[in-house]
Amino acid sequence: MTAPLPAPPLGPRAGRITTAHGTFLTPAFMPVGTQATVKGLRPRDLREIGVEIVLGNAYHLYLRPGVDVVAAHGGLHRFMGWDGPVLTDSGGFQVFSLGGLQSVSEEGVIFKSHVDGSLHHYSPEKAMHVQAALSADIIMPLDECLPYPVDRGYAAASVERTTRWAERSLEAQLRPQDQTLFGIVQGGTYAELRELSARQLARLGFAGYSIGGLSVGEPKSQLCAVLEATVPFLPPDRPRYLMGAGTPDLLVEGVRRGIDMFDCVLPTRTARLGTALVPGGKLVVRNAAYAADLRPLEEGCDCYACKHFSRSYIRHLFWAREMLGPQLVTIHNLRHLTRLMDDIRRSVAQGCFTEFAAAFWARRGGAPPGE
Amino acid sequence: MTAPLPAPPLGPRAGRITTAHGTFLTPAFMPVGTQATVKGLRPRDLREIGVEIVLGNAYHLYLRPGVDVVAAHGGLHRFMGWDGPVLTDSGGFQVFSLGGLQSVSEEGVIFKSHVDGSLHHYSPEKAMHVQAALSADIIMPLDECLPYPVDRGYAAASVERTTRWAERSLEAQLRPQDQTLFGIVQGGTYAELRELSARQLARLGFAGYSIGGLSVGEPKSQLCAVLEATVPFLPPDRPRYLMGAGTPDLLVEGVRRGIDMFDCVLPTRTARLGTALVPGGKLVVRNAAYAADLRPLEEGCDCYACKHFSRSYIRHLFWAREMLGPQLVTIHNLRHLTRLMDDIRRSVAQGCFTEFAAAFWARRGGAPPGE
Repeated sequence: MTAPLPAPPLGPRAGRITTAHGTFLTPAFMPVGTQATVKGLRPRDLREIGVEIVLGNAYHLYLRPGVDVVAAHGGLHRFMGWDGPVLTDSGGFQVFSLGGLQSVSEEGVIFKSHVDGSLHHYSPEKAMHVQAALSADIIMPLDECLPYPVDRGYAAASVERTTRWAERSLEAQLRPQDQTLFGIVQGGTYAELRELSARQLARLGFAGYSIGGLSVGEPKSQLCAVLEATVPFLPPDRPRYLMGAGTPDLLVEGVRRGIDMFDCVLPTRTARLGTALVPGGKLVVRNAAYAADLRPLEEGCDCYACKHFSRSYIRHLFWAREMLGPQLVTIHNLRHLTRLMDDIRRSVAQGCFTEFAAAFWARRGGAPPGE
Repeated sequence: MTAPLPAPPLGPRAGRITTAHGTFLTPAFMPVGTQATVKGLRPRDLREIGVEIVLGNAYHLYLRPGVDVVAAHGGLHRFMGWDGPVLTDSGGFQVFSLGGLQSVSEEGVIFKSHVDGSLHHYSPEKAMHVQAALSADIIMPLDECLPYPVDRGYAAASVERTTRWAERSLEAQLRPQDQTLFGIVQGGTYAELRELSARQLARLGFAGYSIGGLSVGEPKSQLCAVLEATVPFLPPDRPRYLMGAGTPDLLVEGVRRGIDMFDCVLPTRTARLGTALVPGGKLVVRNAAYAADLRPLEEGCDCYACKHFSRSYIRHLFWAREMLGPQLVTIHNLRHLTRLMDDIRRSVAQGCFTEFAAAFWARRGGAPPGE
């Protein structure tokens, strides 16, 4: 992986990241394919939308279908029919958030499967083995994900443990030649802990850095403050990935603070409930107002849904509980986000990101968080 | 519509039917898009699969979203994004089968909506008005659909009423210039009533003839016997449509008895539950046997699902309750059927349908019904 990112310590930047399965432009929004599928879409839809990298989840795939099944296919790419870059999360977030956690020790965690209730030992080493078998291009170490809010003492101890787990992950990595391991910065909403975590991980020397434990309920202004307390202490020539954030406002504000990579389930999850992303914010297509509205979800959008179908038809699909409704709004929302990222990258390249962000907020009739 | 079908009185035949929205080859299998969408698929999927004509349902669309909404789009084609031929059922079958029927009189029927419980008067004239607003290319008259089994006296009275309703439909038809109205033969499983119904409708002079009230629970051998009692009394130069039948065995046996058009929800409904059509019959992809099976659903199949995904992956999608699973098996099943129809047409054109049908039954290890 190469990441030739020209970089001020904190500020928008554009680049290109190379992996064993091709390159992707940054800043990038990565759709989430938790169970080896971006819900409702096919790999060729993702290509057409302009998606360049997809997320998978080691936790879910380890439990079902199991790593052996994926490995028998030669890895996640061939299993799910996507030949571009894939990033997998270690499962840390899922272990700590899906309610199955039984115990945490220095060795690792014990959790109960959400699929069948079976008990599993998971460790930094196991997370490396699982992700090696899945053959993702970019992989994550096991980290301790804290709830929000959390007290300072616990957060401080957790930062130290996450660093020790990160070091063990580096040593346990099986395929450094074709898999890139990121470190994950933790520290809750405590600026000094974030700085400490960033400095500790930077000293270990990862190929990229994730910022974890955010977008878990804290105010967006606080999320932005954490980025400002973290990014300056990460190596400027390495990619930065803000985990779990990817709504349009956070994409703009993350890029403003030097983030290169984003993922989020919200744009696809709300799509499945009928909420479309539009320049002004959201359009709830189930609403009665759209019953006979012949316009596309977003006028001027070049996605398959907007080119062929009316709001009225898509509303009908949702009321009739037809699978095509969620599919079409998912296609639209992902295209809306890839167009947004294209526009962001263009504005960064042309040195007018600040003006772009101001226009973005003006269209939404709001102000950026923290202003 | 033209239907230059060279025709022995009873036997396989191949042709081409022209409508206001293009032509389709016969014998044809028509996928069912009850609510203006073939469940899980997009119009371009249907094109890629080789589908040439799609079914819609006047009953469902009349209730939701309402004919005004569809008419505001200029009709069903633009509403659902499908520019090829569309056939709509009148709603007769749904009124009589979905449990909402309140009363039947010479005038028409009163039924309760399955959507919101509201009461609706429906008549032969109303069925014509609704289908004119939907702008389908081929439309059906309101008919009385009987349960199976039904006694002879009731069936005989019903045949007479269906003929009177058919006559009223011809008179009430609003757009004969671009919509083709078929007559629907009824008569239960009584050969002499089927002959009577066919003769009465033929005398009225429809552009095509549907055979209704079959595939409702009667043995397949009885269905075949009814076809043999009906087809010889239909005008040989007009299309014949066997309503509600379209499993592979009935496609072969229907063509053998002179049927040109078929529709059936089973191939797409069972697909959504994970049952794939294969030359030997069925493959239940959820089964444990396919957990690590790297082969496609059907070896040699050229569909999108078979070209890109393993049985193992598709099984995973079903167990993980991912929408992509039903989509992929639906794509496969429809492609399986369009390939079967291609093969059938070719065998008819080459004069070797009997041999083709024998090989079809040999692959399934069975015998045709009635033999």
